[in-house]
Amino acid sequence: MRLARDGAIRHVMSGVNPQGCQVFSFEQPSAEELEHDFLWRTTRRLPESGRIGIFNRSYYEDVLVVRVHPKILHDQGLPRELIDGETLWDDRFRSIRDLEEHLHRNGTRVVKIFLHLSNSEQANRLHDRIDSPEKNWKLSLADIHERAYWEQHMEAYEECLSATSTLHAPWYVVPADDKDNARLIVSQIVLDVLGGLKMAYPKTTEERRHELESFRDQL
Amino acid sequence: MRLARDGAIRHVMSGVNPQGCQVFSFEQPSAEELEHDFLWRTTRRLPESGRIGIFNRSYYEDVLVVRVHPKILHDQGLPRELIDGETLWDDRFRSIRDLEEHLHRNGTRVVKIFLHLSNSEQANRLHDRIDSPEKNWKLSLADIHERAYWEQHMEAYEECLSATSTLHAPWYVVPADDKDNARLIVSQIVLDVLGGLKMAYPKTTEERRHELESFRDQL
Repeated sequence: MRLARDGAIRHVMSGVNPQGCQVFSFEQPSAEELEHDFLWRTTRRLPESGRIGIFNRSYYEDVLVVRVHPKILHDQGLPRELIDGETLWDDRFRSIRDLEEHLHRNGTRVVKIFLHLSNSEQANRLHDRIDSPEKNWKLSLADIHERAYWEQHMEAYEECLSATSTLHAPWYVVPADDKDNARLIVSQIVLDVLGGLKMAYPKTTEERRHELESFRDQL
Repeated sequence: MRLARDGAIRHVMSGVNPQGCQVFSFEQPSAEELEHDFLWRTTRRLPESGRIGIFNRSYYEDVLVVRVHPKILHDQGLPRELIDGETLWDDRFRSIRDLEEHLHRNGTRVVKIFLHLSNSEQANRLHDRIDSPEKNWKLSLADIHERAYWEQHMEAYEECLSATSTLHAPWYVVPADDKDNARLIVSQIVLDVLGGLKMAYPKTTEERRHELESFRDQL
């Protein structure tokens, strides 16, 4: 359900030069993606060095919605003993932590934002999608059915956030009932991360100054 | 230098149905590949579930040839503090171990084979590439120059093998001066791994038998 993600991305990132920014939305995995481990499809879409890459959904689906509906696992082409094993979720958390640490060590800043909607606000937004004709297209029956699993989702989130919030790749849990406030918080997180990168254009040295002067003669 | 790899792949794998087997050769990284972390380009090429994927070279180049010629690092778009740091190689070994464990946990068997050529046999094969007109095309000046770094290569190999040979992804060090013997050993390794997978076609159950009989009526 995109009750908050799409809007937040649009509001926070719309002022950014798209030359250096890309958004990937991960929906149902394709047949090709299901033929690989659960980290593969997002790794392929990692941003190039120097760019901002936004993942709308991610490999976290594989420890969240998949955990709530474990029958999805059976379509993931996994060895039988893995599905039946006790350690599947812990193993996935570990794989995620290892990947994010690897990315951090290699110069990628991993920023994970969880937009936390309350149960009642989620109901409000779903009602709104029924009541407002221009929002009707956003709603599917699956969204309604999914509400029956609210408790299970909360448990899965809780375990996931605890297991994967690390020093270099912390989770930011943003209260999202108030849209404006949520977007302001997300903007501030992004700004803080970018500020921490201490980026600057290359300074002109004396030598470069001379080189530039010599260019003038060739104009 | 492909003094042994190409030949071993050809000899060991030529009888395999190519429908289930793919080979990727990793040469100089492309500009796009250099814009990502050092594990990215091989991860993209991982075999689908149920297939054999052969990597001719791999991410191990990034802790071997790159270590012997560290100036290559400066083309990899890495943050300055990473290149100057003390822990770069240990960090890369760790990233490799984490990746291979992740793959193993998700059903991929990682088989790593090091074809070990002695210094004198390497010299013989290079001489042969000069002497035999039909092999001339295989030789480049870089191969000759690289021999000056023999000691450094041996040191890099030694550290790498120690740091990345793990329970689930061990290194097989195969003496390769004797081509036939090396290929026999590699074949046996591949056979052992395939045998360990205990693959079998699905068995026909009584229920399936009935279903099949019902198909006959519809023919």
